[in-house]
Amino acid sequence: MRNVIVTDPPRADLADVDALAGYGVATAHEAMGRTGLAGPHLRPIQSGVRVAGTAVTVLCWPGDNLMVHAAIEQCRPGDMLVVTTTSDCVDGLFGELFATAAQYRGVRGVVTSTGVRDVAELEQLNFPAWSAAVHAQGTVKATAGAVNVPITLGRAVVRPGDVIVADDDGVLCVPRLQAGRAVEASAARVAKEAATRAAFNEGQLGLDRYGLRPLLEQLGVEYVAAEDYAE
Amino acid sequence: MRNVIVTDPPRADLADVDALAGYGVATAHEAMGRTGLAGPHLRPIQSGVRVAGTAVTVLCWPGDNLMVHAAIEQCRPGDMLVVTTTSDCVDGLFGELFATAAQYRGVRGVVTSTGVRDVAELEQLNFPAWSAAVHAQGTVKATAGAVNVPITLGRAVVRPGDVIVADDDGVLCVPRLQAGRAVEASAARVAKEAATRAAFNEGQLGLDRYGLRPLLEQLGVEYVAAEDYAE
Amino acid sequence: MRNVIVTDPPRADLADVDALAGYGVATAHEAMGRTGLAGPHLRPIQSGVRVAGTAVTVLCWPGDNLMVHAAIEQCRPGDMLVVTTTSDCVDGLFGELFATAAQYRGVRGVVTSTGVRDVAELEQLNFPAWSAAVHAQGTVKATAGAVNVPITLGRAVVRPGDVIVADDDGVLCVPRLQAGRAVEASAARVAKEAATRAAFNEGQLGLDRYGLRPLLEQLGVEYVAAEDYAE
Amino acid sequence: MRNVIVTDPPRADLADVDALAGYGVATAHEAMGRTGLAGPHLRPIQSGVRVAGTAVTVLCWPGDNLMVHAAIEQCRPGDMLVVTTTSDCVDGLFGELFATAAQYRGVRGVVTSTGVRDVAELEQLNFPAWSAAVHAQGTVKATAGAVNVPITLGRAVVRPGDVIVADDDGVLCVPRLQAGRAVEASAARVAKEAATRAAFNEGQLGLDRYGLRPLLEQLGVEYVAAEDYAE
Amino acid sequence: MRNVIVTDPPRADLADVDALAGYGVATAHEAMGRTGLAGPHLRPIQSGVRVAGTAVTVLCWPGDNLMVHAAIEQCRPGDMLVVTTTSDCVDGLFGELFATAAQYRGVRGVVTSTGVRDVAELEQLNFPAWSAAVHAQGTVKATAGAVNVPITLGRAVVRPGDVIVADDDGVLCVPRLQAGRAVEASAARVAKEAATRAAFNEGQLGLDRYGLRPLLEQLGVEYVAAEDYAE
Amino acid sequence: MRNVIVTDPPRADLADVDALAGYGVATAHEAMGRTGLAGPHLRPIQSGVRVAGTAVTVLCWPGDNLMVHAAIEQCRPGDMLVVTTTSDCVDGLFGELFATAAQYRGVRGVVTSTGVRDVAELEQLNFPAWSAAVHAQGTVKATAGAVNVPITLGRAVVRPGDVIVADDDGVLCVPRLQAGRAVEASAARVAKEAATRAAFNEGQLGLDRYGLRPLLEQLGVEYVAAEDYAE
Repeated sequence: MRNVIVTDPPRADLADVDALAGYGVATAHEAMGRTGLAGPHLRPIQSGVRVAGTAVTVLCWPGDNLMVHAAIEQCRPGDMLVVTTTSDCVDGLFGELFATAAQYRGVRGVVTSTGVRDVAELEQLNFPAWSAAVHAQGTVKATAGAVNVPITLGRAVVRPGDVIVADDDGVLCVPRLQAGRAVEASAARVAKEAATRAAFNEGQLGLDRYGLRPLLEQLGVEYVAAEDYAE
Repeated sequence: MRNVIVTDPPRADLADVDALAGYGVATAHEAMGRTGLAGPHLRPIQSGVRVAGTAVTVLCWPGDNLMVHAAIEQCRPGDMLVVTTTSDCVDGLFGELFATAAQYRGVRGVVTSTGVRDVAELEQLNFPAWSAAVHAQGTVKATAGAVNVPITLGRAVVRPGDVIVADDDGVLCVPRLQAGRAVEASAARVAKEAATRAAFNEGQLGLDRYGLRPLLEQLGVEYVAAEDYAE
Repeated sequence: MRNVIVTDPPRADLADVDALAGYGVATAHEAMGRTGLAGPHLRPIQSGVRVAGTAVTVLCWPGDNLMVHAAIEQCRPGDMLVVTTTSDCVDGLFGELFATAAQYRGVRGVVTSTGVRDVAELEQLNFPAWSAAVHAQGTVKATAGAVNVPITLGRAVVRPGDVIVADDDGVLCVPRLQAGRAVEASAARVAKEAATRAAFNEGQLGLDRYGLRPLLEQLGVEYVAAEDYAE
Repeated sequence: MRNVIVTDPPRADLADVDALAGYGVATAHEAMGRTGLAGPHLRPIQSGVRVAGTAVTVLCWPGDNLMVHAAIEQCRPGDMLVVTTTSDCVDGLFGELFATAAQYRGVRGVVTSTGVRDVAELEQLNFPAWSAAVHAQGTVKATAGAVNVPITLGRAVVRPGDVIVADDDGVLCVPRLQAGRAVEASAARVAKEAATRAAFNEGQLGLDRYGLRPLLEQLGVEYVAAEDYAE
Repeated sequence: MRNVIVTDPPRADLADVDALAGYGVATAHEAMGRTGLAGPHLRPIQSGVRVAGTAVTVLCWPGDNLMVHAAIEQCRPGDMLVVTTTSDCVDGLFGELFATAAQYRGVRGVVTSTGVRDVAELEQLNFPAWSAAVHAQGTVKATAGAVNVPITLGRAVVRPGDVIVADDDGVLCVPRLQAGRAVEASAARVAKEAATRAAFNEGQLGLDRYGLRPLLEQLGVEYVAAEDYAE
Repeated sequence: MRNVIVTDPPRADLADVDALAGYGVATAHEAMGRTGLAGPHLRPIQSGVRVAGTAVTVLCWPGDNLMVHAAIEQCRPGDMLVVTTTSDCVDGLFGELFATAAQYRGVRGVVTSTGVRDVAELEQLNFPAWSAAVHAQGTVKATAGAVNVPITLGRAVVRPGDVIVADDDGVLCVPRLQAGRAVEASAARVAKEAATRAAFNEGQLGLDRYGLRPLLEQLGVEYVAAEDYAE
């Protein structure tokens, strides 16, 4: 690992970021061709929050939050902190004091593959968090790491300045240079889904709307009346 | 796997189904001789909902929700969708659009060994869901499966038309032909528990109510004062 | 295992216990030199509750809650039930009827490495619970165990009379003889954190407050402008 | 649970059983339309053993091996013991003494969703075992269960008399009434695979042998030279 | 955590230690009333090794092996290193160089809740290891911990000088002061098992040897012929 | 996901690849500053094999091995197949027939975040495999994916042409452009370790060799005689 703090990485445009927050994780993920999810192990500590921001990435040693301190200084309004460790760790690397310092700099929330703590206090601060665990376990400040380098967050690769979208459905990374396209594709998807929703509300079936009956037939799926079916 | 869509399976009587919803998972499970639970890995996305319905079972390929589309057409008022895959999969096979189509047909909720997504929207629709994960990951419609065949859901076997009871305590399957007996046994258990609750509220001990003191003695359990006990 | 029920173990002073409840898990854990946590696998079934009590420990056989009945009789006002099994078990060893009997004796809550059930009812009773799972699975009363012997609860060792602190951040065990010191150290930590919070609210950085810049330098962490950084 | 010991269930024909042992788990699974696997969590304690037998099913209470004793009496030459519990349990329910008694009756091995112990001794006895864990944890004989009733073993349902095939690739259940067809289909598959193996050994590609190039094109998969590809 | 290195703790008698190595994990665990196991998550990297030694305990910070260096100096012939961390960590805290240094001091093996690495080299050195993982991940030497203090190792509490027995069935801790009794009880158990083994080899059933038939009847377990049994 | 098959990506120099195979995973990982490991969940199916090759990356849909067929055509002598899926999947995506075709093209082994099957046959072919599971579960060929695009493999990012080193300690990715430096740094590390090994074989302690005594003192670690230590 190169122990660096990269300063002033280019960020995605906040207009795109805010638009993606409006669309949410599931829509933007679909719009990007079903890519970018961190995975189901990262869960929100709160309910009903949908947020997006530009990633400030932090790579810590397990049990050590030194580099989060270094990262706070690099934050700007509109950022999201994205914290991971060099190997698996569920300690409470992030809590209320960090949230206080981060909010001062306009940070919108934190996403971490580790644990968080002070969850009652974080909710009072309206500082949203997504994490792999809730754990009060404290950490030290002893070992080097990196800030604003590319990291893996579950199955996603996050680069500084990428867009992080997070809501009740999980955490998504939209690469900075694809943010504009993701907004457009999300808008198109939302329009299409609205039409589908309306049709479903009137009783249309997905089988018909998506033309799936010929596919079922081609795949050899048979309809059998229950009285004719033997296990 | 036989790729079939079984139509019009016999369902449990909705009067029994609704009675079981009133009793809830823990009571009906006990009343059935402690059987029928799917296991603790299936959790509700909402809180405080208790529901029961007749199972429409769906067996999908991992990463593929084609057969859920086929299953929707087979649903009737009072049904619950029960979705699993041929091997482990936590993708978001079920979301808001499916819920919309299912609600139109009177479906009461979904239970799945996979993931769900659009959880904020599902809550707005009052469409309850129990799942092994929340994951925005999208799916394809490419591979055959089956509808209304027997499936395993954790430790439970679910057949079409069986009663699915689900609440904050998890998911229970009551076989269709045992539904009537389960209602009766649940009623008896509730009466017995009410008496126990009243006794406990007046200070009686389980040791006395259930006559456990002789058993402790027979098992050789000794009472030792703290000052006489050495680890 | 020695099958004993130890009676009247000395308890931590309830004044200390209540003081620790006020400080909460994360603060008391830090104050004790970052020790005493059970681990992130024990989660509350409710939200926003912070409680502390003196441990009545229960060691059961998997699938068997006989010794919980024996333990209830040993409880006093201010106690917390701490239930584990001789090997891994996520069955619903604890539910509403136990909570009723425990509340009658002034028990403040339950912490268990197993599952709990009747979670809706437990919330109505305002009887808080922390557990490794929610599972309706019922249990038998057939096999001996022990009450008020030392047990392991995740990474923590819990002895009867120790202080159990539990909140949204998890479960902490403060050894009985350290309770007074833990209260003092917690008070000191709270004061220090208040000062830090105030400083962070005015924009000070942890890097400066904790004097971390020389450490970063000593560890060889370099600052690199984004345009000069190649992966 | 109905607490029964079902005697003399019909078994699959041992000629079919032995033929399936010859084909192994992966081949027979494919031949059956990709069904019947218990799942990857059941692993062999030994290496290089391929065996098949007729299932004697055992449903125990967690931490309790009483019903295994009852099951041994029901065993005949050619049987496999298939042991599970009513809820998750990794205790060492099966060890050397059981293997000794089972071998006396001609049992060919054991498959269990629990733990096994005495693995060095089991290997010396040439008594193969597949389990979810190795754990020395001892068990009691205190709670009722069932023998030769249908059970779930991971994703598979096992009925008494079904064929259990087990090797380094895992554990497969072939329903008794499908054993003959499974043998035939396995033979056909082996012949087809031999031809494919020969072709691959001469350099043919799966893309050509299975005619997949048009599918790739239809799915929109493009070939791009590395120098023209930007992430 | 008190950061101490405790020197010269009393050790269990090596004669007892060696006797327990002869009996192995499963037998000694049973002889101790089914206590002392660390749990099924600790697995050997080698096969067929049975060893026992006196515990030198090591408590490290996650990702940090500083205290293992300190522990080596405290080792004597006949010891086993028992390494854990203050919170979950699967990094490779122990490898070939440590094994070399430990062997020089007569250490018999290592047991750790973390990962190990250099497993091929450890096998060449005939230095046995039990761990929760194999992971090449390297560690730092930056944070304090403790040597020869009581630690939890899974469900077991290990104190310095306790007997660690380890073989293919897992890892057992026998408290120092109980070592003599454990040897005696193991001998008795082995004798009893030899008689049972002989009886089983002649066809006796556990049902008869342990007198279980009345228990089955008392528990209401019924025998039903297969043709009379309906699911 | 862009559905592409990237042809002829530049590969690391095979001289470097072979040198890294000689050093092994743990050494090369350390030499690279403790980076590049996939994580402890990827385990070898065989024992004692150490291999390295250039990555041909494959991104499949869960339950679908279509793109592995496409990838085989892109392989050259010296390559390693690196297979993952868009979301978690432990099906047996790779088995003996693929190994046959891959060996024909000079492929040295496979590394996959999914399952493998035919493990007995793979060992006979001397085709080494590292995977997250062994599972006989078969797959379909229905959904698009990608070949030779960057993928995440646990915590590592793998790009086509990177060096994959794999042995009993796990799986390492060395970026193509760092391969030369990794060889040099590994050689230096091996020399240093040889000196340390020799010193340890003569009784030197790590405390002295690495100069750790002052650090212990600075961290406040105290030496306490056992008789003076109270828990």
